[in-house]
Amino acid sequence: MKSKGLGEFLGEVIGTFTLILLGDGVVANVGLAPRLAAPAYNWNTITIGWAFAVIVAVYVAGGVSGAHLNPAVTIALAVKRGFPWSKVPTYILGQLVGAFLGALGVYLVYREGLVAAGMPNVWCTGPGSVFGQAFWGGQGAAAQGSYSLLNASIAEIFGTMVLLFGVLASGDQRNLGLKFNLGPFLVGGTVLSVGLSLGGPSGYAINPARDLGPRIFGALAGTQGLFDGSYWIVAPVIMPIIGGILGVLLYDWFVSAFLPEKSE
Amino acid sequence: MKSKGLGEFLGEVIGTFTLILLGDGVVANVGLAPRLAAPAYNWNTITIGWAFAVIVAVYVAGGVSGAHLNPAVTIALAVKRGFPWSKVPTYILGQLVGAFLGALGVYLVYREGLVAAGMPNVWCTGPGSVFGQAFWGGQGAAAQGSYSLLNASIAEIFGTMVLLFGVLASGDQRNLGLKFNLGPFLVGGTVLSVGLSLGGPSGYAINPARDLGPRIFGALAGTQGLFDGSYWIVAPVIMPIIGGILGVLLYDWFVSAFLPEKSE
Amino acid sequence: MKSKGLGEFLGEVIGTFTLILLGDGVVANVGLAPRLAAPAYNWNTITIGWAFAVIVAVYVAGGVSGAHLNPAVTIALAVKRGFPWSKVPTYILGQLVGAFLGALGVYLVYREGLVAAGMPNVWCTGPGSVFGQAFWGGQGAAAQGSYSLLNASIAEIFGTMVLLFGVLASGDQRNLGLKFNLGPFLVGGTVLSVGLSLGGPSGYAINPARDLGPRIFGALAGTQGLFDGSYWIVAPVIMPIIGGILGVLLYDWFVSAFLPEKSE
Amino acid sequence: MKSKGLGEFLGEVIGTFTLILLGDGVVANVGLAPRLAAPAYNWNTITIGWAFAVIVAVYVAGGVSGAHLNPAVTIALAVKRGFPWSKVPTYILGQLVGAFLGALGVYLVYREGLVAAGMPNVWCTGPGSVFGQAFWGGQGAAAQGSYSLLNASIAEIFGTMVLLFGVLASGDQRNLGLKFNLGPFLVGGTVLSVGLSLGGPSGYAINPARDLGPRIFGALAGTQGLFDGSYWIVAPVIMPIIGGILGVLLYDWFVSAFLPEKSE
Repeated sequence: MKSKGLGEFLGEVIGTFTLILLGDGVVANVGLAPRLAAPAYNWNTITIGWAFAVIVAVYVAGGVSGAHLNPAVTIALAVKRGFPWSKVPTYILGQLVGAFLGALGVYLVYREGLVAAGMPNVWCTGPGSVFGQAFWGGQGAAAQGSYSLLNASIAEIFGTMVLLFGVLASGDQRNLGLKFNLGPFLVGGTVLSVGLSLGGPSGYAINPARDLGPRIFGALAGTQGLFDGSYWIVAPVIMPIIGGILGVLLYDWFVSAFLPEKSE
Repeated sequence: MKSKGLGEFLGEVIGTFTLILLGDGVVANVGLAPRLAAPAYNWNTITIGWAFAVIVAVYVAGGVSGAHLNPAVTIALAVKRGFPWSKVPTYILGQLVGAFLGALGVYLVYREGLVAAGMPNVWCTGPGSVFGQAFWGGQGAAAQGSYSLLNASIAEIFGTMVLLFGVLASGDQRNLGLKFNLGPFLVGGTVLSVGLSLGGPSGYAINPARDLGPRIFGALAGTQGLFDGSYWIVAPVIMPIIGGILGVLLYDWFVSAFLPEKSE
Repeated sequence: MKSKGLGEFLGEVIGTFTLILLGDGVVANVGLAPRLAAPAYNWNTITIGWAFAVIVAVYVAGGVSGAHLNPAVTIALAVKRGFPWSKVPTYILGQLVGAFLGALGVYLVYREGLVAAGMPNVWCTGPGSVFGQAFWGGQGAAAQGSYSLLNASIAEIFGTMVLLFGVLASGDQRNLGLKFNLGPFLVGGTVLSVGLSLGGPSGYAINPARDLGPRIFGALAGTQGLFDGSYWIVAPVIMPIIGGILGVLLYDWFVSAFLPEKSE
Repeated sequence: MKSKGLGEFLGEVIGTFTLILLGDGVVANVGLAPRLAAPAYNWNTITIGWAFAVIVAVYVAGGVSGAHLNPAVTIALAVKRGFPWSKVPTYILGQLVGAFLGALGVYLVYREGLVAAGMPNVWCTGPGSVFGQAFWGGQGAAAQGSYSLLNASIAEIFGTMVLLFGVLASGDQRNLGLKFNLGPFLVGGTVLSVGLSLGGPSGYAINPARDLGPRIFGALAGTQGLFDGSYWIVAPVIMPIIGGILGVLLYDWFVSAFLPEKSE
């Protein structure tokens, strides 16, 4: 066994690499490599794709770094669960590096499609993303408008809060926490649920590294407009951090405080 | 550890909050925030969304209150499983409060879409709900009619009966009950199954708090017609209670009576 | 605990009732109670619906009767696994009674839709079933023909053979059998897989009671043509029995014979 | 118990037979036996079908041969995990024989549809496969081009690399490896994820036997063009082997090297 600190860094790198390779991969696949007619790809494809991206990535990196793969998780655990603040920069750096490399992998796998389509934004959420912004007007109706930065920010806060509920519950042995390493299936199920239920207004970044790492790659690869305005830093970076902290606080106030003391 | 009674109340609050935030969330997402064209959202989206809403919610609240999250479950367990009648009002109140707050969360996450669409009913089942009533005439055909209150009531009874079968079986250690806290996956699978198989005629409330809490919120938020007629109290409130009691009775008559005595 | 024989009978009744209520239920739901436009219901809806129908039903009845819920399973286990032949008639009768009652439940839940649509065949497979026979000509193309009784029979044999592979593997502690009562999830997954992969030509009865019990109910309820010709006895009754026996034989010749002796 | 070597050979035969019967089966089912209108079959149908094909097949063969079912897995395990090179030819031969027989099963189940449609390629990936090559131009847009052999090769390398990540993690007891024989669900989930996220450009063979065995059968059955050019040997045969070796190397460099020593 080599250095624990290096392992944690590399664990976050390969875990977040796997997460983004598969997660941005499903976005690119739906947009750039359909094998059946258009109705054959749906929001279920996207959300199930991201859910299993999380599950595979957590099983790959879990034993090395704990598989945070998300600065909002790392910071929330530092705020309320004693994760050492001294490790936070290493973890976040590893997550950003892994996410950047995962986007590189997506670029390589879908290169011809990306080039032919003018290098659209399959990388990150917000204006210009390959599926556009969510609109309203009812299913099947023409778009009548789209969600504002304010509304997207609220969605990111709620989404990340629920993500933390699932992450904390999955391993909480005083609660109904899953045993025998089955927790990642609940984490993936939570990401599925957030995507299906709260993902519309903002595209559910719920993870600053998931959004910023591929955004940097995308800008280098030639995708236009990724850093226009302040969307990129507000909705998918600051708000998930706030939502994550809120999630751990609410979980502890409403749940942890009332759980029986249990020794496993 | 603080007061057990307070914990049980707050457990039902946060659990049912999570259930409705994610459950009504998927309804709102499909109706008000599509990111792909119309055929990209289907009944699978709705039913998988509700199933994982249940799974996440039960894991959040399970260790505190047992995660009933449903007056039909609470009452059925009081009728036949010795759950104290003295706790029933607290549980039901917590469920209604949580469901109301979950609807508030959905309002915040989808506010601009709801306002733009004239505050449609994403809250509860019955006439006026965002997907209308189920019609017949065959898939793809024009609607030729819709289900009556009587037929919807029968569907709610059968749906809640099957829900109780799943809930009771999931933790029944004399039967094939799941161990190691894996039961919530069967409960979620049962809700998925009820939605896919019995959910059409009534929209499968199968939970009075799931329906009434958001209905109250919706009325306050300006959705019209939610309390017109008697549908709101009959199909989604009274019938699930009857169905739940029927479920526990049938389970005990046909299953429990013939299970071997087993000590875990 | 009451009589074991009576319990086994009633276990098969309530288990197969639950299976058909949910299984025929999803067929009726897609055909007779859509809540979204036509493309919102697909073959995934049908196959996931049947898979969780199996999972819920097996957890309900498993501890009482072993939850065969299928004469092809019962007979196969009698042929090669020492299940007593003397119990076979009781099990099959319980399965037929349960399937008949499950169809009655579907009738009650979808009554108005069934009546309005002229009592179509949501009950069983074969000519006249609500989704017609499978056709060829390529996806999206007009039907150019449909599968013959011979081809449907071959599909039933292969489907039931694979079902037995999954059933036998799920509990085989010398193989990778699932422990802690998790086996039903593999059984449900096998039914999902058979439906997705082998279900087209014949509609995957793969269970004589699943087909014959609701067929009898449907004929009494007024659905026309259910017993025309010999399809009803050949493809969904005789062929699954042959396929089930073939499955257990192949599993034992190719798998069991080479498994290590293991004491759990 | 008979000969271990024979058992390993037959285990790979019946396991890969089951894999291809169900995997090519879902391709044939979507293309040749639809029971609902065209939009009722989608990429989720295909990828979920393949995922459960893997899960069922691994549970069938796992206890006998370890259920590699894939020469890329067998070779990767020989390169870095001490799987005896002397057994590699037996395993690969068993996989090819099983895959050939599985394709024969699909032929029998879908014979009339295949004949009526002119024996299209439901067997293997690459030019001429029943769903054509992936195109770009955005979802719903007309095809503007398709992926080259180079791009398809890169996709096969990344896809098989991720497959190995999942396979290795699923049973790695120093990592979060699954216990109690639950690993195959993660392996199936990884195949689902690869299909959803990386499957577009090449159709995700990620398994030389899965592609070559049915390709030989298809050529004998009269499907035209299966061995035209060099696609058949490069993208679905050589590249998965490279990707598999890369996967085990990366897993060991980035993950295994930093895992704690643990005795189970």
